[in-house]
Amino acid sequence: MKFTLENTDPRSSARAGLIETDHGTIETPIFMPVGTAGTVKAVHQAELENEINAQIILGNTYHLYLRPGIEVLKNAGGLHKFNGWSHPILTDSGGYQVYSLSHRRKIKEEGVTFQSHIDGSRHFFSPEVAIDIQRTIGADIIMAFDECTPYPCDYRYAKKSMEMTHRWLKRCCEHFDKGEGHYGYKQTLIPIIQGSTYDDLRRQSAETIASFDRDANAIGGLSVGEPAEDMYRTTELVCEILPKEKPRYLMGVGTPANLLECIGLGIDMFDCVMPTRNARHGLLFTQHGIMNMKNAKWKDDHSPIDADGPCSTSRFHTKAYLRHLLHSKELLGAQIASLHNLSFYLWLMAEARKHIKAGDFSTWKKRMVEVVQRRL
Amino acid sequence: MKFTLENTDPRSSARAGLIETDHGTIETPIFMPVGTAGTVKAVHQAELENEINAQIILGNTYHLYLRPGIEVLKNAGGLHKFNGWSHPILTDSGGYQVYSLSHRRKIKEEGVTFQSHIDGSRHFFSPEVAIDIQRTIGADIIMAFDECTPYPCDYRYAKKSMEMTHRWLKRCCEHFDKGEGHYGYKQTLIPIIQGSTYDDLRRQSAETIASFDRDANAIGGLSVGEPAEDMYRTTELVCEILPKEKPRYLMGVGTPANLLECIGLGIDMFDCVMPTRNARHGLLFTQHGIMNMKNAKWKDDHSPIDADGPCSTSRFHTKAYLRHLLHSKELLGAQIASLHNLSFYLWLMAEARKHIKAGDFSTWKKRMVEVVQRRL
Repeated sequence: MKFTLENTDPRSSARAGLIETDHGTIETPIFMPVGTAGTVKAVHQAELENEINAQIILGNTYHLYLRPGIEVLKNAGGLHKFNGWSHPILTDSGGYQVYSLSHRRKIKEEGVTFQSHIDGSRHFFSPEVAIDIQRTIGADIIMAFDECTPYPCDYRYAKKSMEMTHRWLKRCCEHFDKGEGHYGYKQTLIPIIQGSTYDDLRRQSAETIASFDRDANAIGGLSVGEPAEDMYRTTELVCEILPKEKPRYLMGVGTPANLLECIGLGIDMFDCVMPTRNARHGLLFTQHGIMNMKNAKWKDDHSPIDADGPCSTSRFHTKAYLRHLLHSKELLGAQIASLHNLSFYLWLMAEARKHIKAGDFSTWKKRMVEVVQRRL
Repeated sequence: MKFTLENTDPRSSARAGLIETDHGTIETPIFMPVGTAGTVKAVHQAELENEINAQIILGNTYHLYLRPGIEVLKNAGGLHKFNGWSHPILTDSGGYQVYSLSHRRKIKEEGVTFQSHIDGSRHFFSPEVAIDIQRTIGADIIMAFDECTPYPCDYRYAKKSMEMTHRWLKRCCEHFDKGEGHYGYKQTLIPIIQGSTYDDLRRQSAETIASFDRDANAIGGLSVGEPAEDMYRTTELVCEILPKEKPRYLMGVGTPANLLECIGLGIDMFDCVMPTRNARHGLLFTQHGIMNMKNAKWKDDHSPIDADGPCSTSRFHTKAYLRHLLHSKELLGAQIASLHNLSFYLWLMAEARKHIKAGDFSTWKKRMVEVVQRRL
């Protein structure tokens, strides 16, 4: 994986760059739609490519490992062949879902034993296992196996957990570096900074992670319930430590305003279930603000969902129609809303990039952050 | 509405024709995807038009009347404007759903009182009300308000009900003929033959319905659980009575084999929830037979869903991927399967039309009827 830093905003830490992988080039800053079980929910792959303009999507190791299972993915020739997405794929390590979804999990130095949330079957993930699974999935970008601490988290636990995450990272790297890219494509491993909301731990973790000198660096353990100021302060703090010449990935973030603020702090990559999950609940993000499409006020509003937005589907359909679909629990409601939100997220990243390149990101961002948080 | 009979098969009663409406021309024989609440479930309107090649879709009066409600549809400028489908729309009269879905319904000569299955609210449908609602929906083709008898149905009830349906038809016609096309488009009213599985009643009903001399004629009360032979015998019997120069619509039918057989008996129009409902349950129809995509046998089958089929989406995705999506209850599973089944149904109708025009429908049909019923 190769990163080219193209432009840096003069009045913030925002950057525009290019990430090159064997499955294609990614223009940063970028938002990566989440395709948990090998599908971005309610969206066709052709729509991702041609309408949303997604450049890279996520797959979840925990979900894919349990279903369809690694053997099936291996026989398919990897996730790209399995789901027909030919552009880059990033996989999380499975750690986050083991902690948040599975049953009877037990974390030890060696790894984590857990029971599947689907059928209760028993499994074991370790740094080595997580790397092997992601290798077999065929991810272009593989995430280190870490422990993502909850919020709030007491200092002692945060420190102990961070130190284990660092030891696990060493095992991840050693195991990864012994292996080779699968299916004829190069793969890369990204380490993850932890340390909860404690500045000294975050500083220590950022320095440790940077010292591993991988192709990119990620920030985990944020967007888990902490106040936005904590997220921004932590992000700023670690971005100042992380090397400028490598992409920075803020995991699990966030709202459009979160994305804009964190781009300003030097983040290049984001992922979040918010645009798709909120879409299914009828919450739309637009360049004019947030719309709850289930509200009665849209019942007889026969104007386009988003007349001047980037999504052709929401320029075509009306607010009243989408509200009706959502109220009637029609699948097309989730489809239209998901298309809309993802198109908006990708558009917002492309706009940010444009303004970074034009040198006026900071003034544009200030205005946009206000606008995108309005309730319409 | 204008019907042009183009070709008749020399060895069966199959016909190819053209139905012209103000929203476009329909090539028959035709299958009409069901868009119950103003949406063909899990399918985008653009997909209906460009991938499935649907020429006309259905809307359900009962559902649309309850949600979004007739005022909303009126303010939108009719269902075409509301859901963005610019081609012909046919609406059922609401009768069938009142009997099958609503609560505490009471049928009297004047009409039917019933409670909504959504919120228990009380409503009243009569022949006149059903016409008014369909006028406001803006359907190109409006169905008469009838009583659809269940199967089995005792002779006395079937006769009494049929006679009331005939009296209701008179009221439908009188009320319809006093009105005018809405939103600047012409509308037409189609009467429905009833009479359960009793040949003498069906004969009597076909003669009565034909005597109303409307633009087309429909056959109701079939595909409600009776043996296929009863359906075919009844269809054949009434097709011999109905005028050749008018389209014949067999309501609620059916499987691919049912469609082929009934085309051979002289039917021009079909609708059925089967392709979309079965798709959501993982049952696919193909030109080689029927596939239950949830079966374990597809788990590791990485060949296209339907390699030589008419649906680009099922040529693109694999059986193993679709099986995974359906097992994981991912919305994309319903989306792909619905696209597939509807594409196949429309393809089958286009093929039938081609063979009718070529004069070899009967031999083609005989072979296809066998093939499409195979279990793969």
